[in-house]
Amino acid sequence: MTPPEFPHRDLLGIAQLQPHEILFLLDEADRWVEHNRAHGRDARLAGLTQINAFFENSTRTLLSFEIAGKRLGADVVNMHAAQSSVKKGETLIDTAITLNAMRADVIVIRHGSSGAVALIADKVDCPVLNAGDGSHEHPTQALLDALTIRRRLGDIANKRIAICGDIMHSRVARSNILALTALAAEVRVIAPPTLMPAGIERMGVTAFTDMDAGLDGCDAVMMLRLQTERMAAGYIPSLREFHALWGLTPKRLERAKPGALVMHPGPMNRGVEITSGLADDRDRSTIAEQVEMGVAVRMACLDVLTRGRR
Amino acid sequence: MTPPEFPHRDLLGIAQLQPHEILFLLDEADRWVEHNRAHGRDARLAGLTQINAFFENSTRTLLSFEIAGKRLGADVVNMHAAQSSVKKGETLIDTAITLNAMRADVIVIRHGSSGAVALIADKVDCPVLNAGDGSHEHPTQALLDALTIRRRLGDIANKRIAICGDIMHSRVARSNILALTALAAEVRVIAPPTLMPAGIERMGVTAFTDMDAGLDGCDAVMMLRLQTERMAAGYIPSLREFHALWGLTPKRLERAKPGALVMHPGPMNRGVEITSGLADDRDRSTIAEQVEMGVAVRMACLDVLTRGRR
Amino acid sequence: MTPPEFPHRDLLGIAQLQPHEILFLLDEADRWVEHNRAHGRDARLAGLTQINAFFENSTRTLLSFEIAGKRLGADVVNMHAAQSSVKKGETLIDTAITLNAMRADVIVIRHGSSGAVALIADKVDCPVLNAGDGSHEHPTQALLDALTIRRRLGDIANKRIAICGDIMHSRVARSNILALTALAAEVRVIAPPTLMPAGIERMGVTAFTDMDAGLDGCDAVMMLRLQTERMAAGYIPSLREFHALWGLTPKRLERAKPGALVMHPGPMNRGVEITSGLADDRDRSTIAEQVEMGVAVRMACLDVLTRGRR
Repeated sequence: MTPPEFPHRDLLGIAQLQPHEILFLLDEADRWVEHNRAHGRDARLAGLTQINAFFENSTRTLLSFEIAGKRLGADVVNMHAAQSSVKKGETLIDTAITLNAMRADVIVIRHGSSGAVALIADKVDCPVLNAGDGSHEHPTQALLDALTIRRRLGDIANKRIAICGDIMHSRVARSNILALTALAAEVRVIAPPTLMPAGIERMGVTAFTDMDAGLDGCDAVMMLRLQTERMAAGYIPSLREFHALWGLTPKRLERAKPGALVMHPGPMNRGVEITSGLADDRDRSTIAEQVEMGVAVRMACLDVLTRGRR
Repeated sequence: MTPPEFPHRDLLGIAQLQPHEILFLLDEADRWVEHNRAHGRDARLAGLTQINAFFENSTRTLLSFEIAGKRLGADVVNMHAAQSSVKKGETLIDTAITLNAMRADVIVIRHGSSGAVALIADKVDCPVLNAGDGSHEHPTQALLDALTIRRRLGDIANKRIAICGDIMHSRVARSNILALTALAAEVRVIAPPTLMPAGIERMGVTAFTDMDAGLDGCDAVMMLRLQTERMAAGYIPSLREFHALWGLTPKRLERAKPGALVMHPGPMNRGVEITSGLADDRDRSTIAEQVEMGVAVRMACLDVLTRGRR
Repeated sequence: MTPPEFPHRDLLGIAQLQPHEILFLLDEADRWVEHNRAHGRDARLAGLTQINAFFENSTRTLLSFEIAGKRLGADVVNMHAAQSSVKKGETLIDTAITLNAMRADVIVIRHGSSGAVALIADKVDCPVLNAGDGSHEHPTQALLDALTIRRRLGDIANKRIAICGDIMHSRVARSNILALTALAAEVRVIAPPTLMPAGIERMGVTAFTDMDAGLDGCDAVMMLRLQTERMAAGYIPSLREFHALWGLTPKRLERAKPGALVMHPGPMNRGVEITSGLADDRDRSTIAEQVEMGVAVRMACLDVLTRGRR
């Protein structure tokens, strides 16, 4: 029932994908970018029920998935689980059984715990899309980042790309490392020693704690959002010091290649991980483009995953 | 304007229904079950506005009504009244006048006060569906439970069915007693003495405070969710004691008929009113099936109530 | 790309409109009133994405815009920004960039700060509709009020209309003054001295602190909602005294013309700015009608603003 180009029922993470499957999703997404720019109409998911079950707040990602589903004609229903029966002590599995019994055609899940999405996927009969689980994976974010890079630089292979910030807790970093190395980029991770996972090199990346050294010759610099809670937890001494050592500034960016891309998954802490000037520099910053690619990537994933059900 | 088979504008409770009207709704719902399983499409409510006005949180019931309406093509709008002008001191009647003035075609209401839904229905010109009001009624829950029993056991008449737990505060119990006795089942209620309403026998049921005795020879055992707030209010001594005396366990279930159904409206307190093992026993437990029937029953009700407006 | 009758991309306030443009919107809305009453269907916004970005809670206005968009076939998506990344320190401009990048076709915004909607409009490529910003403007409220008056009294020109209550903080008052004076009504404002803006006469109105004098000979009396927070802030001594001096009672209404309209934008504080009896007097009170006109006016605005994009 799954199409030959994408032989998976679910999209739980980049780790499960072959390079040609990643490229297939990017190609599909490329077409949706043009479709959206042309204000095209499509109703291929008409009559299908898409449930967005978000156990963690995320305005942007939810909005992106909701717009993606509605643009394809799906009946989109949001379940805000934070204010839901989860509070009443319902187990995750009971929620999965409930969503499944309502005969959803695709379920999009965000959850604060790594592995929770796979747990739910195991209990349901329809495709499940991981919209971010704990510090595990956020596959559509990695796909939209890859699409942005490919459209700007023409290719991903052999490009030198730095991912900077709180590598340790970041599902965005993890999914991006998996996608970019699969597509043969040279990936560097830059983080304070306290936020650098031990053994990260086993993922095929080079680790830097000195940002200037890490940025050297990069084609793209991907900043991560700093969760300010990390400060209270003692991972970083102060926002000011973090910015001084690992914030992206125009001066520091000079170490990268001329014209290197500046990327951020949003929402940004302007003045912390990135200066406002760089964020707003429309030649370098791809931040708005990433949001646009996000809708297209999610349309592609929703379309591909539901092909077997239509 | 109302169809002859269902001569009511609103569905406020089971109490207003004749047995043949209940059966008519179950027959209609049966067809929607098959329709949903076949991933059928339908748009008979296209162009109609369904407002779900929920003054009390309820993720599952809201989701079920929202999916039901969208599967029929309605424009479904949710009003989360808890975070709304209700806080600003707007009266319930002003809310009713507002919803009516927006020219809703059907309004689905959940409210914490018994009778609030009837109060709103009295002020509006369109069909109103009670999605649960205080400790009064929850008619679609009773219909979905009846549908589940009928599909599993073939018939409801002359079946012995026990409803167990907090009978006193439960609109689910009340609506089920009304529906099941109307359909000629033998209904038993089992509760701690503090949670058994005085004079409940006048509803045509037999009351038991001893669970083993109550379960004797039952065809179906319907557990109610225990609101843990009841403990603070002194109705029950402890969750552990409640479970020991009135929780459903495999051992206790042996008193019922072999193969007796185990039902629960969800969300469950596993280990309190029901053991996890029983909840997950797919041969006995109908819990997922009840959720599925819920969507079908709500589609049937939305369809039937709006026939006069199409 | 904008239609000649309405040469504006956005609707940020009444201040930007010529009288004939206001009348054009009222004429358009009139047609939608009849359409809605006839349960008509329309899908002219099919395939367009409408984002309702509400940074301030407002159940009624949000519901009205959501129903308006869905009745026109738009894909309507709500962004509840209060529980969103705004809390995470995202700037307003970043939110604008995000919504724009998602390729919305029209954005409806409510925000607690005056001017915030114009700030967002400046950063996006699609029409923006102001659903209320701080104490600045609430243009669709003024349009729906004007439509209500025109339908009830036949015309607005030369009618004497009093706006009563917290004039100082009210965007409803401000937009209404602009609309009604543009349409040649004689506008009076009535407020306690502490809630009367200095120099209000420059807006072309007559100011009264004595309510009886202000009501004299009025064709319509528009009450404003009293934000009870004003009391804590020292603007008014007590609700009781406010009601005694500036609340609308049947006795006081006798000073107005026989049959004068009683209007309120809702939600009402019954017994504070208006007595319950007057609110419920269906001959005088237009409160439900205003809600109905609200949906029609918003349909007209959404339709007119998106014409260039279809």
